Amino acid sequence: MESISRLVTRLNQQGIDAALVSDPNAICYFTGTRFSPGERLLALLVKKDGSCQLCINILFPYAGDVPALWYSDAQDGVELLAKELSGTLAVDKSFPARFLLRLQAVKPELKLILGTVIDEVKAIKTPEEQEKMLRASQVNDSVMARVAELIQPGKSELQLQQEIDGIFRQVSQGNSFDTIVAYGDHAADPHGVPGERTLKAGEAVVVDMGCVVDGYCADMTRTFFVGENTEQEIYDTVLRANLAGIAAVKPGIPFQEIDLAARKIIEDAGYGEYFIHRLGHGIGMEVHEPFDVSATDEVIVQEGMCFSIEPGIYIPGRVGIRIEDLVCVTKDGCRVLNAYPKNQEVLTR
Amino acid sequence: MESISRLVTRLNQQGIDAALVSDPNAICYFTGTRFSPGERLLALLVKKDGSCQLCINILFPYAGDVPALWYSDAQDGVELLAKELSGTLAVDKSFPARFLLRLQAVKPELKLILGTVIDEVKAIKTPEEQEKMLRASQVNDSVMARVAELIQPGKSELQLQQEIDGIFRQVSQGNSFDTIVAYGDHAADPHGVPGERTLKAGEAVVVDMGCVVDGYCADMTRTFFVGENTEQEIYDTVLRANLAGIAAVKPGIPFQEIDLAARKIIEDAGYGEYFIHRLGHGIGMEVHEPFDVSATDEVIVQEGMCFSIEPGIYIPGRVGIRIEDLVCVTKDGCRVLNAYPKNQEVLTR
Repeated sequence: MESISRLVTRLNQQGIDAALVSDPNAICYFTGTRFSPGERLLALLVKKDGSCQLCINILFPYAGDVPALWYSDAQDGVELLAKELSGTLAVDKSFPARFLLRLQAVKPELKLILGTVIDEVKAIKTPEEQEKMLRASQVNDSVMARVAELIQPGKSELQLQQEIDGIFRQVSQGNSFDTIVAYGDHAADPHGVPGERTLKAGEAVVVDMGCVVDGYCADMTRTFFVGENTEQEIYDTVLRANLAGIAAVKPGIPFQEIDLAARKIIEDAGYGEYFIHRLGHGIGMEVHEPFDVSATDEVIVQEGMCFSIEPGIYIPGRVGIRIEDLVCVTKDGCRVLNAYPKNQEVLTR
Repeated sequence: MESISRLVTRLNQQGIDAALVSDPNAICYFTGTRFSPGERLLALLVKKDGSCQLCINILFPYAGDVPALWYSDAQDGVELLAKELSGTLAVDKSFPARFLLRLQAVKPELKLILGTVIDEVKAIKTPEEQEKMLRASQVNDSVMARVAELIQPGKSELQLQQEIDGIFRQVSQGNSFDTIVAYGDHAADPHGVPGERTLKAGEAVVVDMGCVVDGYCADMTRTFFVGENTEQEIYDTVLRANLAGIAAVKPGIPFQEIDLAARKIIEDAGYGEYFIHRLGHGIGMEVHEPFDVSATDEVIVQEGMCFSIEPGIYIPGRVGIRIEDLVCVTKDGCRVLNAYPKNQEVLTR
């Protein structure tokens, strides 16, 4: 598989002896086969010499290209796997303690490190993947245009959410995450669950939504107002932060620089304490993938990575406003995957 | 919370300084609050002195009884948490590598062990929980009686599955897992996904199903035949293994003894190589909980634990037969939660 070759290249570049992939989504990405191992050990071992093995319980049928290292419920899969390991091993971020602590006990001389290298390979989208990401966001854009027509005073958050999800079922493989529709001060909760509350003119309407197209995820947020933008200063601040974040994206810098570029706009405007989350997150076949666009993430941005830029200001009891686009890193900047306008937030009814 | 008190008691009995719970299901069990933290750190710290803290991102609203240790996306939650830790810490089995390896790096003097103690507290059902487990299995029994009437030559696996799931939606909170319906040699795959295949008289019909009642899970398997039991010897061997497993259950023995008691029956009958999975698994609010009833699990069985006893014989290209009941450990044996008969496998049509 081409994706495994890219992982092998990186292992050699970084002087890592092998990588151990346990996340079923990542195993599907690297092998093309989807498993539901439940609590049982399933791990793809990729060595720097290019060889690989799939450690798998005999209960799960597998007849793919990767040689299988079979174990049964009567055997200790970790012990079996440990025999194949030496030197420095990168384990993926979700590798659970029940296997990790056992591996450390069985083979204490192994040097275990966090498998950022695995995430990097998956985070850098191939040209084909980039096309799929763009297409998913184009479909999402077209749905947002219909959403702008569906927003009506008197309509509940829940009703609007159901209308959006109905459209997604028609035009895509469905939602990439639970659609957020939140009005007014309810939008001050960034993860607000839509409820029976109905819209009043002048209230902010936060719509955070995404569909899946050809296996790849979209994710976009727009904030609307019916009649008049009653929070113009806050809206403009969030929009400037969104644009500053996008402008900061380029290969070779740490992710935290992008977060800080957007965060500085909001802080300078005096709203710093109300921007309570990271600026963005990686996205691809899963809606949340590494890496974080956050003040603490020091990973280096590389061409082909796709992630969200989603600053927000959340003032409890008053309002929440968020504006989110997806971007894909190019040779010297980024391509914004969403084209739905950000300056037509006022809807006339 | 009473469940936290029981955990504190066990920490003191076992000389463990603290436990760290990260699984959202377990956090719900101990605190009564359900969270969806996604990739963000959420961890309940319980110390042997009885104090506890919930390490939680400021994005998630929480106003429960446990004091919160708040962190933001701009902070390293693990570093913050590490300041509260010393000595021996039991982490739960799903605690992911991204936090575990970071914790080991930040505080190398910590002794991290697998949190079997956390699983034990959750595995030992209170009398109220035992009642709910029994009720869920009684509902499951009543549905199995209806299933026996629905089995018909010519009906597809998929159709029967959909009929079962429809009944579950009427009489319970729905499925506890994806219903398995597999005919004949298709049943030789223990996790067979129902398909378009239609039933022929004399073929084995494996039905593995469970519903959720009042938050607790049922899980039972019966194997039927229309007209005549064409695999009497295999059926009887599996049934004897099921009964031997149940007869072996009592407090104070390791789980592996139960597995071996049932496995011996199948091995002695010459079918050992065709019993390819563990004998059973823990069950409660989740359909698969610790512990494994397997040849390798050395955990000691205790009063109040609930788990499945589900021996099977799977002969590729020929047939699969499995018979499963849930049991709850009593003072000197166990109570079988399922009452649907195991000797009425032949259906007349």
